[in-house]
Amino acid sequence: MKKEFVKKPLKFDFNDDKPKDECGIFGIFNHEQASELTYLGLFSLQHRGEESAGIVSCHEENLIEKKKMGLVGDAFDEETLAQLPGKSAIGHVRYSTSGATDIKNSQPIKVDYSRGQVAVAHNGNLTNAKYLRDELEAHGSIFTSTVDSEIFIHLMAHPKYKNQIEGIVGAIKKAQGAYSLVVLTDDALIGVRDPHGFKPLCIGKLGHATVLASESCALDLIGAKYVRDVKPGEVVIFSNKKCQSRFPFRGKQQLVSQCIFEHVYFSRPDSMIFGENVALVRERLGAELAKLHPVDADMVIPVPDSGNFAAIGYARESGIPYRAGFTRNHYIGRTFIGPVKQKRGFRVRIKLNPVSEVLKGKRVVVVDDSIVRGNTARCRVKALREAGAKEVHLRISCPPHISPCFYGIDFPDKEDLIAANHSIAEIKKFLEVDSIGYLTIDSLLSTVTAHPKDHYCVSCFSDKHPLAPKGGFGKFALGRNRR
Amino acid sequence: MKKEFVKKPLKFDFNDDKPKDECGIFGIFNHEQASELTYLGLFSLQHRGEESAGIVSCHEENLIEKKKMGLVGDAFDEETLAQLPGKSAIGHVRYSTSGATDIKNSQPIKVDYSRGQVAVAHNGNLTNAKYLRDELEAHGSIFTSTVDSEIFIHLMAHPKYKNQIEGIVGAIKKAQGAYSLVVLTDDALIGVRDPHGFKPLCIGKLGHATVLASESCALDLIGAKYVRDVKPGEVVIFSNKKCQSRFPFRGKQQLVSQCIFEHVYFSRPDSMIFGENVALVRERLGAELAKLHPVDADMVIPVPDSGNFAAIGYARESGIPYRAGFTRNHYIGRTFIGPVKQKRGFRVRIKLNPVSEVLKGKRVVVVDDSIVRGNTARCRVKALREAGAKEVHLRISCPPHISPCFYGIDFPDKEDLIAANHSIAEIKKFLEVDSIGYLTIDSLLSTVTAHPKDHYCVSCFSDKHPLAPKGGFGKFALGRNRR
Amino acid sequence: MKKEFVKKPLKFDFNDDKPKDECGIFGIFNHEQASELTYLGLFSLQHRGEESAGIVSCHEENLIEKKKMGLVGDAFDEETLAQLPGKSAIGHVRYSTSGATDIKNSQPIKVDYSRGQVAVAHNGNLTNAKYLRDELEAHGSIFTSTVDSEIFIHLMAHPKYKNQIEGIVGAIKKAQGAYSLVVLTDDALIGVRDPHGFKPLCIGKLGHATVLASESCALDLIGAKYVRDVKPGEVVIFSNKKCQSRFPFRGKQQLVSQCIFEHVYFSRPDSMIFGENVALVRERLGAELAKLHPVDADMVIPVPDSGNFAAIGYARESGIPYRAGFTRNHYIGRTFIGPVKQKRGFRVRIKLNPVSEVLKGKRVVVVDDSIVRGNTARCRVKALREAGAKEVHLRISCPPHISPCFYGIDFPDKEDLIAANHSIAEIKKFLEVDSIGYLTIDSLLSTVTAHPKDHYCVSCFSDKHPLAPKGGFGKFALGRNRR
Amino acid sequence: MKKEFVKKPLKFDFNDDKPKDECGIFGIFNHEQASELTYLGLFSLQHRGEESAGIVSCHEENLIEKKKMGLVGDAFDEETLAQLPGKSAIGHVRYSTSGATDIKNSQPIKVDYSRGQVAVAHNGNLTNAKYLRDELEAHGSIFTSTVDSEIFIHLMAHPKYKNQIEGIVGAIKKAQGAYSLVVLTDDALIGVRDPHGFKPLCIGKLGHATVLASESCALDLIGAKYVRDVKPGEVVIFSNKKCQSRFPFRGKQQLVSQCIFEHVYFSRPDSMIFGENVALVRERLGAELAKLHPVDADMVIPVPDSGNFAAIGYARESGIPYRAGFTRNHYIGRTFIGPVKQKRGFRVRIKLNPVSEVLKGKRVVVVDDSIVRGNTARCRVKALREAGAKEVHLRISCPPHISPCFYGIDFPDKEDLIAANHSIAEIKKFLEVDSIGYLTIDSLLSTVTAHPKDHYCVSCFSDKHPLAPKGGFGKFALGRNRR
Repeated sequence: MKKEFVKKPLKFDFNDDKPKDECGIFGIFNHEQASELTYLGLFSLQHRGEESAGIVSCHEENLIEKKKMGLVGDAFDEETLAQLPGKSAIGHVRYSTSGATDIKNSQPIKVDYSRGQVAVAHNGNLTNAKYLRDELEAHGSIFTSTVDSEIFIHLMAHPKYKNQIEGIVGAIKKAQGAYSLVVLTDDALIGVRDPHGFKPLCIGKLGHATVLASESCALDLIGAKYVRDVKPGEVVIFSNKKCQSRFPFRGKQQLVSQCIFEHVYFSRPDSMIFGENVALVRERLGAELAKLHPVDADMVIPVPDSGNFAAIGYARESGIPYRAGFTRNHYIGRTFIGPVKQKRGFRVRIKLNPVSEVLKGKRVVVVDDSIVRGNTARCRVKALREAGAKEVHLRISCPPHISPCFYGIDFPDKEDLIAANHSIAEIKKFLEVDSIGYLTIDSLLSTVTAHPKDHYCVSCFSDKHPLAPKGGFGKFALGRNRR
Repeated sequence: MKKEFVKKPLKFDFNDDKPKDECGIFGIFNHEQASELTYLGLFSLQHRGEESAGIVSCHEENLIEKKKMGLVGDAFDEETLAQLPGKSAIGHVRYSTSGATDIKNSQPIKVDYSRGQVAVAHNGNLTNAKYLRDELEAHGSIFTSTVDSEIFIHLMAHPKYKNQIEGIVGAIKKAQGAYSLVVLTDDALIGVRDPHGFKPLCIGKLGHATVLASESCALDLIGAKYVRDVKPGEVVIFSNKKCQSRFPFRGKQQLVSQCIFEHVYFSRPDSMIFGENVALVRERLGAELAKLHPVDADMVIPVPDSGNFAAIGYARESGIPYRAGFTRNHYIGRTFIGPVKQKRGFRVRIKLNPVSEVLKGKRVVVVDDSIVRGNTARCRVKALREAGAKEVHLRISCPPHISPCFYGIDFPDKEDLIAANHSIAEIKKFLEVDSIGYLTIDSLLSTVTAHPKDHYCVSCFSDKHPLAPKGGFGKFALGRNRR
Repeated sequence: MKKEFVKKPLKFDFNDDKPKDECGIFGIFNHEQASELTYLGLFSLQHRGEESAGIVSCHEENLIEKKKMGLVGDAFDEETLAQLPGKSAIGHVRYSTSGATDIKNSQPIKVDYSRGQVAVAHNGNLTNAKYLRDELEAHGSIFTSTVDSEIFIHLMAHPKYKNQIEGIVGAIKKAQGAYSLVVLTDDALIGVRDPHGFKPLCIGKLGHATVLASESCALDLIGAKYVRDVKPGEVVIFSNKKCQSRFPFRGKQQLVSQCIFEHVYFSRPDSMIFGENVALVRERLGAELAKLHPVDADMVIPVPDSGNFAAIGYARESGIPYRAGFTRNHYIGRTFIGPVKQKRGFRVRIKLNPVSEVLKGKRVVVVDDSIVRGNTARCRVKALREAGAKEVHLRISCPPHISPCFYGIDFPDKEDLIAANHSIAEIKKFLEVDSIGYLTIDSLLSTVTAHPKDHYCVSCFSDKHPLAPKGGFGKFALGRNRR
Repeated sequence: MKKEFVKKPLKFDFNDDKPKDECGIFGIFNHEQASELTYLGLFSLQHRGEESAGIVSCHEENLIEKKKMGLVGDAFDEETLAQLPGKSAIGHVRYSTSGATDIKNSQPIKVDYSRGQVAVAHNGNLTNAKYLRDELEAHGSIFTSTVDSEIFIHLMAHPKYKNQIEGIVGAIKKAQGAYSLVVLTDDALIGVRDPHGFKPLCIGKLGHATVLASESCALDLIGAKYVRDVKPGEVVIFSNKKCQSRFPFRGKQQLVSQCIFEHVYFSRPDSMIFGENVALVRERLGAELAKLHPVDADMVIPVPDSGNFAAIGYARESGIPYRAGFTRNHYIGRTFIGPVKQKRGFRVRIKLNPVSEVLKGKRVVVVDDSIVRGNTARCRVKALREAGAKEVHLRISCPPHISPCFYGIDFPDKEDLIAANHSIAEIKKFLEVDSIGYLTIDSLLSTVTAHPKDHYCVSCFSDKHPLAPKGGFGKFALGRNRR
């Protein structure tokens, strides 16, 4: 797996290399303030996508759509929300890439078609998107965006289906890959989770209203109660006439493969994901790290805020005091980037300034959630040493990343993943740390308790993929290449 | 034709009641500054649509699209134009209505489909739009806007056509009504004018580049030479391989029906429209008016700027001095409307202030291009009298408007057209003028010389329509009701 | 006066070289909608200054200020006006220069000082500004802008005056040059015109309210009646207690010198300026031109809109038909300039496109208000010829400009004024016209009838100045050099 | 001190009641990127003022000024910074109040005066501002803002001083109260700290450049080294000719009174303030709390992020595990407030969501920095209980607030300070906590080690003020009442 010899020099890049998730989705049915609560729900899910925000509400059998580039709080105001009346609504936040930043690719996608109007918001990545699209185009379909939601709608709109629900069921039977969906029609809210259950989607109750959300933190904010997850392969339908659950894949159920990285990094610590609380899982990740990679040190510090809970877990398990060695600047935003773009070194210091007086002469355990390219980590280690740390022991609360994701996470290509190309010893040397410790896949899976261990996807750590992209594992299989 | 008895009171409304055109279109092929010249062309066509502006350019077989709400000069800047590289481009300006002001309905519409990418910009109104759309939806098509361009593209995308050009030809064979189109593909610019030739579209040359534009004033600005009009029913194709003209309707040619109102009001006076200059036609309209409705007066004044040329023609024919009785405020724009929206009386004075010292004690002939509802005219006559005019003789450079338009002009409904419901005597009384004079249809048609008289559409004056909307003349037939 | 030999080549510059006025001012006292009417008044005075707009209202003895860059209609909306309550207000529009475009230099200037609050808006140019400023600074004054209003306020604030009115009277006694002022205090509105009366200022009545405005067109729009001009050297005071007129310069009255260029170019044609209507004066200017410079031609055309009235006068006097040879684009605004800044040739065509069919083979008299540098005129003549005009006879409705203005008009420096450096014959050759005709100073003054001929300032034509700048006629004397 | 009987009901208000600081200031001398580094410095000081940001640079003896409302990152971009050339610059960030949010009150204030140009940025609150202003106005000064910087400049501009430095020294001798200043002239950067030393100001070095900043974190970001604090009563002058330190108050030195609340709450934890690191002081505050108010509990959690360091100190001292019971939403910004302003309950949950699974059934020690009105604290305690906490023990890392601040902190009025009107028992009952513990003034002062204990101002805890406002302790003495 490792290359024998380092031929190309390691790139040194100060850019933040956190992986990006595809999206957050939200839906509500039967509430007077449907669009305002959707706004709040999206606000809670903002960490799942900062590029664009969209809401579609249903008012008197008419779907109304507002989509904007930017953060939810900037994109929507009272005036815009007032233009979204109605008792049901869905919403979507999308992540940011440099590539296809365009309002046309924002979601939900809303259309008119033979059975009326429909709007779809999608989280995940279809592994047969190109094939479905080619087939649809061959039959005369036209595409105005590059997002998978539009494929779903084309599939749904086929004249052979007798109503909207049959259209949705028909569409998901043709789709392959990762998809959690919220769908709004003129009389119903529908939630869908693919049979593998890659992406989360949960159900909540708020009085007489029903809520769907990527994460339960969106329920908390609006005062809704968490009921349960939508099950892998389940279609839930909320309408005035019925509240129905269907399992179109029953009998041919595929292996459940819930994305473990939701627990490691993506989801908010206060969310219930795949049946258990994220914060507690992260504390356990830290405790596992302490067991696997103990070290004699003066303090445990997190890389804020992604390493906070694992650092707490490491400190408690090891008995080494938890302290704060970095100060985080809370004003970091996109608008800052411009003026100093040539001076990348600033970006790390701007975001996280080490506290010299705390670190001076100390042996420090630093806990972070993951290493992707390694450049940011290297830069932070350097900053700790400049601030006076005597020893730096890096602990990562997951196994080494050796494969890109085909189901919706925007990791770099394999050639840019440090652990896919270098041994642990090489990484330690590159990062200039005194020691480095990752979790094993087994120790990682020991921290989740709500499902059997083989019900989680660990393919970015194992390079074994539960579902092959149609056409193989080439570059093309990555959804982001369409954009 | 006239109602025998006035049952409902005439509405008194200070709003500007000028009819609105649907759009202006522009295309250029084989020029290094394709998008910048399209920007300039749209700027010249701005009077045809102030609501939104859009440009699509073709760069390395890839279509790039930028659309914005607002005027061309506000919507596009150097940075945006720089994002539209390539040697061919098309553009579109759209008129403003209160109804469906939405970026989704702005044009050109650009899509991906089986034969690559295509963008379409349309001026006119299909008379079988609803039928085409229903049929397409029944076969599974989805619609993301309410504009006719999207229908054209769905028709073009049918798998039965063997290439893009065949798709365009096939699509226009199914379409009925008014359409001048510019279409951009990855290797060609195509111009189309419907077999009736309702809307103008002309061809120009700029060095090695070819230009298409709604009006020749767009050619002047960029320094291009006017070559000729696209002929009714003609499809012109400009590509690197060929420069071709096709007549798909040959043999079954319908009656040519070019919109005479382009000469009366819409087009810019410096444009060549349907083979002759608009300014000269308008001067002849004024001269005809002077012959039909002479009067003893001290001066002829225009309602600026729509009545300028006809007033010049009237003055010259009658020998009565031409003077300027209104001062036009050049800062009138949308942004003004807000603060004083309750005080409609202001809007006439804000736009056109009468010059008392010029008018005081004088007998005045006022020349305007048309009367729609009559409220604005009434208000202006009142302003002239308050400014001291002793007599006000109103002369209108076209016949009375008695019918809405089914081919793309946004006239009010028949019930709101003053001449459709009242006799000339009643109108004279309502407007409180000393005399009023319209042209006859014959005198109107005597002013155009480039085509036989029966090659013009005068249906808004005659209520006889060259092409019945599919489904009849009901409200539904009006394209704007879709919006 | 003329240079003997042309040493440096004439600059060829397509930029619009219209002279710029300094400002428009407006005030209203005792009206419930004071700020909204001020907004409307400024809108009518917009042609006097497009750079910035400001309003100060007085609400419960507190002055509130809102100033913005840009046009009145863009700068103010309902929300902003709602933040300007109170029954009295003043407003100001400022012209645009490339130099000191800065919100700090926008007016009115509002301050707190020992006698309460005061706001001042100024039109004109002090000829001893530098001296007053140096003197004030020597006594400890600080300056936050470079506009003369701030000097007035410092002078007013001197502790020796016993109240605000005495402060104003004291201040104007120290000021020299051109100043029409509106001043707002916590209980009064004051209007001031310098003893020479360089700049206009008139008084109007609207019910119980009193209005002050640079031009009477601002009264028309709000429905106020024109009462009379503020007299040269008069201070008018409107307060709840009194309505008073004072003449602080009585006894030492200087020669009245009202700016004739207000009639020739600056003021709106529907305004009463210095006691008579601008449109009628301009028609007489055209008639004088026809008498002085007759020519055998086919048509008289204006350069729209500045030459409109003079062209009408020329046509009527000469009997040659008035026609429209240029089409004006009404969408020209600042936002356009950007994208084509390298292509100056466009700017003339964009603004005024010649109508070829009208001009082809014709002998044309073109009437414009003035020539400054000559480049724009040259460019327009060229455009007429390219459009087919056989002969071009240029007629200018004022004498040749040979001197800059020291009282507030932003003419170019003497070295850039074509007529200050070249003979008429040279100008004719440079502009490539078949003939050229200016007015003489005598013929110019024959068109104004409300005041004795020596009560007008013609110094830009005569180079004889009614008031020497303190320190001489050097560059420094020009107010704009401070900026 | 406590009222005997609670007459008025405690107000219940969800609004965030953190005290606001007045400002952050920054200056740099002799660096090619002066304005860009000032931008970065202000970015680091953003927590000291979010309302407006301003930079003045000195280019070729000319001061250039840019000020904007909003955050530094939004207010300034590359284009704006490019308009601020020069090798020296100062900058200012201002806090936000509902009152006088106006660009006129933003800083630095820049003026022209007899000795050239000068710009001043101020942190603090003059206690004799009204008196100075009245006196200045009586001598003819005019004021365009309500900020103290303008008073300083008027004082400096007095003709009696022979140069700019003498003017500054003369001005500060007349001023009373709290002021840290950075002053920029055409050839020097000057830093000033009032003789009491209320507000911080430190000196840094970056190569050949000198830097002044409110906090050392601004030095870290730009890579400058912390040299020392400006001393109370010191004036430091950096120019090309000299680098000088003056002590104008020597001999009449007042008691040093450095604001202890900078350590408790305002300053960033990575800053050196008054000679020592803030993070370490805060950890000691937590440790003192653990000694004074021990409790048997399952976990210590901070109110993030203000309580983070004190919670760490409490946990370490007590041996109770540190955990994270709240999740902080990082997208909270001003733009959010609008849509849900009626639903204040949301604001606490939006900002800090409790993590139920962590808290359920647990005895929790919550550490925060201060309680002002008590409403936010009450609301958070409620949220913890709803999330399942069995016991809630509140620990506050300072003594009870019983007095407003006269030196620049925007605390509420005394009547709204919960501890000024209620006993600890009453507060415990109101907040519904199981126990509550504050620090004593002695324990507070035991945590700072760089200066004698009587060199700190604790007047908000003791109600004993080191400097009486001129005119007494009435409402008027509070600087914010001017605004």
